[in-house]
Amino acid sequence: MTYCVAVKLDAGLVFLSDSRTNAGLDQISTFRKTMVYERSGDRFITLLSAGNLSMSQSVREILQTHGIPGAPDQPPINMWNATSMFEVARVLGDAIRYVYERDSDALKAAGVDCNVTMILGGQVQGEAMRLFQMYAPGNFIEATTDTPFFQIGESKYGKPVLDRVITPATSLADAAKCVLVSMDSTLKSNLSVGLPLDMVIYKAGDLHSHTVLCIDEKNPYFQMLRNCWGDSLRAAFNNLEQPDWSRQPSEDNPLRSPSNAAMALRKICSPTDKLI
Amino acid sequence: MTYCVAVKLDAGLVFLSDSRTNAGLDQISTFRKTMVYERSGDRFITLLSAGNLSMSQSVREILQTHGIPGAPDQPPINMWNATSMFEVARVLGDAIRYVYERDSDALKAAGVDCNVTMILGGQVQGEAMRLFQMYAPGNFIEATTDTPFFQIGESKYGKPVLDRVITPATSLADAAKCVLVSMDSTLKSNLSVGLPLDMVIYKAGDLHSHTVLCIDEKNPYFQMLRNCWGDSLRAAFNNLEQPDWSRQPSEDNPLRSPSNAAMALRKICSPTDKLI
Repeated sequence: MTYCVAVKLDAGLVFLSDSRTNAGLDQISTFRKTMVYERSGDRFITLLSAGNLSMSQSVREILQTHGIPGAPDQPPINMWNATSMFEVARVLGDAIRYVYERDSDALKAAGVDCNVTMILGGQVQGEAMRLFQMYAPGNFIEATTDTPFFQIGESKYGKPVLDRVITPATSLADAAKCVLVSMDSTLKSNLSVGLPLDMVIYKAGDLHSHTVLCIDEKNPYFQMLRNCWGDSLRAAFNNLEQPDWSRQPSEDNPLRSPSNAAMALRKICSPTDKLI
Repeated sequence: MTYCVAVKLDAGLVFLSDSRTNAGLDQISTFRKTMVYERSGDRFITLLSAGNLSMSQSVREILQTHGIPGAPDQPPINMWNATSMFEVARVLGDAIRYVYERDSDALKAAGVDCNVTMILGGQVQGEAMRLFQMYAPGNFIEATTDTPFFQIGESKYGKPVLDRVITPATSLADAAKCVLVSMDSTLKSNLSVGLPLDMVIYKAGDLHSHTVLCIDEKNPYFQMLRNCWGDSLRAAFNNLEQPDWSRQPSEDNPLRSPSNAAMALRKICSPTDKLI
């Protein structure tokens, strides 16, 4: 399994991935799922990948080197000569389709899970930053102000904190902190997501990466975050008001509203009257 | 989809379920997934169910009424004459197997998802409280002090807060608040989990339910919880220390440890040097 998340903010882009690859619990490896492609002043592109590792490696190879056929008498288009992020996404989608066509029958025949999903984000000179989620059939969607983040892989454990914190106005620092908290929840619940983490931070308009980090279990900031987030979450929880559960149900107990529905549920059941 | 959660504490048991049943997004209904069976002073049993509704209804019917064959010359065993929670779990497992054998071929032939999972908890006079998770093949596991809660259905969004808060020493009030927060995260992320909620609270040794609640969108306590939890989570998040991201990477930036690995990742890529 994998967990990757990317956020598009007014201030820039933040990417985070784990690095665990497994073929069964007894066959675990570390492979980087984040790729940064940049030519300073011209383009900054980051690609996160989840799913079958052989397929995603093939897709990246095509994207970086061979590319896909362009117009007649023109060289193939790859990520280095594409003229926009949309064109990069289109090339990536075509590369995913090509690898599917080449490999999927053989993989399915062998009973191997045959899927690949990716997140592509960045900026090409002359246009704004863009962030895309790529699906297995090679189609893709783009992040908007309503939905400023994408997740691939084991996405559910880490989604609640993103939902609560991330908006386009969030700062890069807060977004970086937030994706680390989101990753922490995922690491805690799914053994097949594992350290080290790769984080990439990009400031809008820079056309080169601001920060590229490798975070392992000895990283003091991530250690602090993991320890303190549990305490902070418990403190937040303790601060929430709670109704007086020791009282018998009554009309003025706010948990018992609407009182009719609640009272209808409160049945003492017997063998002949068992349903609530 | 469904989300049900049950917690076994030193102080008692807490159960919570949503009530949305769907056969596609355009066919949504409300069905109660919580059943309380009690004979005051003798037994308190609560059953939560997820999966195919026709199967779980059949299973409950068998459990409550017909039961399964007992010893020769003895009446069938159902939940009302079982002598322990373990025996109730065994009857329930057999009922699940019976319904599978009866229905699964026809359901599979029709392309209908054929699964049922349940949580069973309670207390029978003369023994301690017990909490079981029932699987589709009719086998079951029991909660322990290491793992004091079970979830069925859409369990991932709501797990991080349970992981952080619940221990056997947690109070009934805190556990009730915690499962509501866990449900709130799930409601926010999965449209097929929906209100109203059913909550049951049981105090150890009582042999009758302490509280049976129906919580709908007008419930003021749950409204408060939903609003305040977002604020509390953001406040907890804001209280976490953050490194100074505006600085250029350096040895004394805690996020950049171990420095060698981090620096190795920081490559300016060109068409001939693209991998991090």
